Amino acid sequence: MITIAVDCMGGDHGPQVTLPACTEFLDRHPDAALVLVGLPEALKGFSHPRATVVLASEVVTMDDPLEVALRKKKDSSMRVAVQQVKEGAAQAAVSAGNTGALMAISRYILKTIDGIERPAIAGQIPNAKGGATTVLDLGANVDCSAEHLLQFAVMGSALVSVLSGDESPSVGLLNIGEEVIKGNEVIKKAGELLRSAAKTGDLNFVGNVEGNDIFKGTAAIVVCDGFVGNVALKTSEGLASMFGTFLKAEFSRNILTKLAAIAAYSVLNAFKNRFDHRRYNGAALLGLRGLVFKSHGSADAMSFGNALNRAYDAARNNLLDRVQVRIAHAAALLTVADASA
Amino acid sequence: MITIAVDCMGGDHGPQVTLPACTEFLDRHPDAALVLVGLPEALKGFSHPRATVVLASEVVTMDDPLEVALRKKKDSSMRVAVQQVKEGAAQAAVSAGNTGALMAISRYILKTIDGIERPAIAGQIPNAKGGATTVLDLGANVDCSAEHLLQFAVMGSALVSVLSGDESPSVGLLNIGEEVIKGNEVIKKAGELLRSAAKTGDLNFVGNVEGNDIFKGTAAIVVCDGFVGNVALKTSEGLASMFGTFLKAEFSRNILTKLAAIAAYSVLNAFKNRFDHRRYNGAALLGLRGLVFKSHGSADAMSFGNALNRAYDAARNNLLDRVQVRIAHAAALLTVADASA
Repeated sequence: MITIAVDCMGGDHGPQVTLPACTEFLDRHPDAALVLVGLPEALKGFSHPRATVVLASEVVTMDDPLEVALRKKKDSSMRVAVQQVKEGAAQAAVSAGNTGALMAISRYILKTIDGIERPAIAGQIPNAKGGATTVLDLGANVDCSAEHLLQFAVMGSALVSVLSGDESPSVGLLNIGEEVIKGNEVIKKAGELLRSAAKTGDLNFVGNVEGNDIFKGTAAIVVCDGFVGNVALKTSEGLASMFGTFLKAEFSRNILTKLAAIAAYSVLNAFKNRFDHRRYNGAALLGLRGLVFKSHGSADAMSFGNALNRAYDAARNNLLDRVQVRIAHAAALLTVADASA
Repeated sequence: MITIAVDCMGGDHGPQVTLPACTEFLDRHPDAALVLVGLPEALKGFSHPRATVVLASEVVTMDDPLEVALRKKKDSSMRVAVQQVKEGAAQAAVSAGNTGALMAISRYILKTIDGIERPAIAGQIPNAKGGATTVLDLGANVDCSAEHLLQFAVMGSALVSVLSGDESPSVGLLNIGEEVIKGNEVIKKAGELLRSAAKTGDLNFVGNVEGNDIFKGTAAIVVCDGFVGNVALKTSEGLASMFGTFLKAEFSRNILTKLAAIAAYSVLNAFKNRFDHRRYNGAALLGLRGLVFKSHGSADAMSFGNALNRAYDAARNNLLDRVQVRIAHAAALLTVADASA
């Protein structure tokens, strides 16, 4: 039995979205159980044979400063959900709440794996090869050293190898050109560390990649600092949303374009399905001594359900142990990098 | 008469693209003249009453190191084109060649405006409001201080106010959240400088913006360091290209989808026209004592023609003097920022 702890209060819509997603998830996975964490009034109507309710008295809001989320709201649904993982009552926690707060609380409660200084957020972005590119960090760390980027590469490789079965997934370093002389000092040094790791066989480093390579699928994993990753992610979301809005408006323009939309239905539907960001919801907080997944704050029930699925797959495939093994295996690498820092 | 110097050898296609674009440009603008710079064999067939030919003996290639472009190839078509601006033989230069080389050569030949330490590349990205967002820096500076970001804001405001007629265009600082506490130290400090500039009325600073705001058109100008700007630009290009490829493939799938494509022609055409990156080709190298425009290396004739148009509009509207006036006006601001650095 795989048990997932759910922060039912998180996200823009809270229990309205999380509870239907939980029911749907339990119905789909007979070997799964959920620990639902939330305010009493939010959870009182919920009942399922494989769901346990754990009450919390507070909720972290989207604009709570880290300080408040971490030090004041000690009985928040987010924190209590992460606590379930710490105590072994659940194998993973999922929240759609404030990203910074979730990272800070998870780090405080669960601590980082040996050899990892900073956890990172790893998300999936659909690519032209029909799969998805795993990108990290998506915003946990706004300033990264070359050593942090190397750690992200090791953690990302572990994640992808566990979930895809490819033992040696390719890793690219996000840069502004393919040539090794490109980029700032941190990026150039990270390139050196990654090339060393490739020589010893610890990483399948394919070199620098550029922004467009995320969508080409040039590398299975793209490593970058959290500032750059967050900008790249949100820029993509903004462009996708603009395209969607434009197509909708143009196809609704008059009776002829409306008929054209009907004719083009199968194509538009394929397009929508292929690039529906809800399908890729559920980013992993990597580098912690426990599995935590972050759902997009604006997720609907289908989207939040995918974040639950991702946590379930990670727990079922024993992601945590396997990441730790790979980190331990690369420990020599990380120590050398650290000593040369 | 507005005269533009053209590096006819630059870009992936060289004279094959630049020469037809030049002919078309001259035919469209009876008050414009061109100085065509290139190798003798490339230009020998070209003739137009308003075109002068200036020969160069070398060409900067896309993979020439800066050192080679700047110190060895002293008679390159790129350098000779920029030299035309320095000497007053042209009001602006346009090249589709190696961006780093063009920036280095322009900076060496033309020097920077007083008060500007580092020139920046400002490009236009189409937004959902039907216009375009001006983003800088797109890749000239991989490491920026808060003061550089302030300088970019002043230069970007000057560019947009000259070209759009809006005397006080809005400026946003690219960040990973709207709150002032977000971002790394450089970004936080840049936010402070920009807020001070807004108080004195020197800039219309609207605060932090996120990646998706570039496409929403939240601010007319978005300021960021060259690493982040380049990643955002290339990520967008990659996503747009993936969408285009996908739609093409889906509409070509079978006879029914091909018929649907015919039905949807007007919509697809509107889509293509609205977001055709060729329409937005021609980035300004700002902060120099002369006008230089960079065309995308892969530009076709229509696209390169737009870069020529942009240089022509800038020269005709006296962009250089007006940028200098604004920079001088904001000099107190830049000096204060510099002293506090």
